[in-house]
Amino acid sequence: MTSRLDPTVLETLRARFKDRLSTGMDLREQHGRGESHHVTASPDAVVFAQTTQEVSDIVRLCAAHHVPVIPYGAGTSLEGHLAAVRGGISIDLSQMNAIVRVSAEDLDCTVEAGVTREQLNIWLRDKGLFFPIDPGANASIGGMTATRASGTNAVRYGTMRENVLALTVVLPDGQIVHTGGRARKSSAGYDLTRLFVGSEGTLGIITEVTLRLYGLPETTSVALCAFDSVEQAINTAIAVVQMGIPVARMELMDRGLIAAVNSYSHLTLKVADTLAFEFHGSAASVQEQVEQVRALAEENGAENFEWANTPEERTRLWKARHNAFYAVLASRPNARGWPSDVCVPVSQLGASIMHTRKLLETCSVPAVILGHVGDGNFHVVFAVDPENPQEMEEVAAINGQMVKFAISVGGTCTGEHGIGLGKRAYMRAEHGDALELMARLKQAIDPLGIMNPGKILPEG
Amino acid sequence: MTSRLDPTVLETLRARFKDRLSTGMDLREQHGRGESHHVTASPDAVVFAQTTQEVSDIVRLCAAHHVPVIPYGAGTSLEGHLAAVRGGISIDLSQMNAIVRVSAEDLDCTVEAGVTREQLNIWLRDKGLFFPIDPGANASIGGMTATRASGTNAVRYGTMRENVLALTVVLPDGQIVHTGGRARKSSAGYDLTRLFVGSEGTLGIITEVTLRLYGLPETTSVALCAFDSVEQAINTAIAVVQMGIPVARMELMDRGLIAAVNSYSHLTLKVADTLAFEFHGSAASVQEQVEQVRALAEENGAENFEWANTPEERTRLWKARHNAFYAVLASRPNARGWPSDVCVPVSQLGASIMHTRKLLETCSVPAVILGHVGDGNFHVVFAVDPENPQEMEEVAAINGQMVKFAISVGGTCTGEHGIGLGKRAYMRAEHGDALELMARLKQAIDPLGIMNPGKILPEG
Repeated sequence: MTSRLDPTVLETLRARFKDRLSTGMDLREQHGRGESHHVTASPDAVVFAQTTQEVSDIVRLCAAHHVPVIPYGAGTSLEGHLAAVRGGISIDLSQMNAIVRVSAEDLDCTVEAGVTREQLNIWLRDKGLFFPIDPGANASIGGMTATRASGTNAVRYGTMRENVLALTVVLPDGQIVHTGGRARKSSAGYDLTRLFVGSEGTLGIITEVTLRLYGLPETTSVALCAFDSVEQAINTAIAVVQMGIPVARMELMDRGLIAAVNSYSHLTLKVADTLAFEFHGSAASVQEQVEQVRALAEENGAENFEWANTPEERTRLWKARHNAFYAVLASRPNARGWPSDVCVPVSQLGASIMHTRKLLETCSVPAVILGHVGDGNFHVVFAVDPENPQEMEEVAAINGQMVKFAISVGGTCTGEHGIGLGKRAYMRAEHGDALELMARLKQAIDPLGIMNPGKILPEG
Repeated sequence: MTSRLDPTVLETLRARFKDRLSTGMDLREQHGRGESHHVTASPDAVVFAQTTQEVSDIVRLCAAHHVPVIPYGAGTSLEGHLAAVRGGISIDLSQMNAIVRVSAEDLDCTVEAGVTREQLNIWLRDKGLFFPIDPGANASIGGMTATRASGTNAVRYGTMRENVLALTVVLPDGQIVHTGGRARKSSAGYDLTRLFVGSEGTLGIITEVTLRLYGLPETTSVALCAFDSVEQAINTAIAVVQMGIPVARMELMDRGLIAAVNSYSHLTLKVADTLAFEFHGSAASVQEQVEQVRALAEENGAENFEWANTPEERTRLWKARHNAFYAVLASRPNARGWPSDVCVPVSQLGASIMHTRKLLETCSVPAVILGHVGDGNFHVVFAVDPENPQEMEEVAAINGQMVKFAISVGGTCTGEHGIGLGKRAYMRAEHGDALELMARLKQAIDPLGIMNPGKILPEG
């Protein structure tokens, strides 16, 4: 339905972008949804931008006609960020995929927003560098920045919040600004970079990102540790955090998830409540970390400690972990995934996960718990039939209780997926009166309300 | 001069706060300056607040009468943040010095804004914890948050940007909001916490801060490494960063500074261009770091490597380093310190420091270079006579050239001191059009312009 749109906008875009403008239904639908259960809401058209100037020109045109603009990277959103709930133009940044600059000396790089994390890491590998933030999906760096993504490595390397140094952003009036800089730290004025990190396209469109990089670790080691119970696994994870052992990854996979992953990824992992660890460092440091972790795991009743020693085994294991979402879906024909994530202070992790397990006991759809437990962050993935309203209501209720519990213990309604459409209802409970301040910032930067409308802030 | 102030404001405050309101000239002058060369501009009155609600009530009153409000912590500002350039009320937060909560399990705490970093660390010590951010001065946590402070440990532990989890803030209309939360990460909306970190009291008054904490390292070791030239020292520092060796501190002290420090702090350090290192970790890990650093230092021509082995020796050394500012002042009777700091990508550190040394060669006042070189951050301290306009102009010109060079190589006009009054002139050069966006945020949050007016943003 393009009827809402002033035809001048489409005509002007078509004249300029020719076959880089599309109004085909399939492409529009694909650009109006992410990977999860959320409603598809197609934009009126999709434009493939190739430069920051082009993005600026499109936004300027849309602003003049009060047309919504939704940035699109790799389409891996989990909370309905891409739904064009008020129509408008989807700006697809996937052709802005140049790696602009890499400095091995400074351990930083600048990339266009459409570069994906796998593309970047392939580029970096022979320079002895890597970019650690790994949300699982092969997301775009722009999308990861816009949702303040993190993932398995965040316990050691932080999130996008800590690893973005500078941005190029197209503001809602089309103006191009540069935020931050290449210095590792600065006290020079308001932190505009962090304002755009996590803003989900609602304050502007990120077109270039300057990132911190890291040297590839001299030694990498991966271990799986099987427990009799989730409690034992969580207690081990908490002890590792409190000891300050610099593990690179520490992932909880409950026995249900291990079974699903075995089946989906043709693995033969022991079906048990499991912590998966990755260690980075010098040989001596990795050895030390491993011994410390093993001692803590054994104190907490670990059954065994298995190693993935070759790079191939490691890749296979983490790929299986990253495919957990699809593994759960595969357990139910034609299901869509409803993923939810919360993050709590680590001391509340056990109580929070136990609370969620209790909720899941009576749940009528398949669901698994997994988590980046080093950060206090855990996920539930439900395999739902979006056409079944009763089931959707049931899952919504469980999700709501999980989120409210997390907020009640000082946590957040989302550790890394973002708000999008899916978590707006919890913003008031989490932020209280600070929500009006967020609305004031939105109003100040996007007075026309054209930037990814309907996301983050609950409706008036 | 209280003449600018509506007398109702003072009367109302006096009725409420009694002897916690002062209009005595000495106290007002002391609250209108920091520790550096900047002009003293006294507020019309000082109020000692004891609760967030009191701060809110004072701000609400001031807003109703369009009276400026300047928050005051420990008075250790270096860039004129405290100058009441348009008069108004200084809200002294030093009596808000309660440590509200410490969680050893979660490695976090909440403190009132007036708690100083030394007070906090004394409190934490017997819990096996510490808060690493260390700007040298015994600043208040509120002030450190407001200036996005960092210091010697930032190379390992980050700055206030990375270590503040949540804030309580009184907005310019008196509303109290809570930003962030206790979860280690969150994707739940705009990053209000980072917006207030570094806002220098211009967007609101920070009254409580939730901080990340760290376990005291099992082993701490300090070494001084003397070089023939600053270039050798810098090259060593760059190599350490690029190798990813997790040093806890890595400080450059040039030979002039060592001489000044020896004299001021009664030490007998070898007078040479020196890197001072601190190593944190397990015994094995510290040993490994030391060997790696020693090898790099020797490759770069280090003359010798000396150890401060006892806690007393270490404390003495870092105290001497922290007193560098006073040591330089002591070299000239009745001088004031004019400290400046810039931060550049580490690959540009050598060129930047060499450029600055060249500028200092012809400088007519005593000046030393020191720096947190692991971050690319370095300082110059000039010992000036503020009554001598020619000399002040000369230093201003050198400072300007140093800053412009830093910006030209991708750096920032201040790594950790903040903008205050002193660096406003460089905001345009550093931020370009993003400066208007900062002004728009200021206007949206503080439409009356009462919060620490005249700071950060260049005038009109």
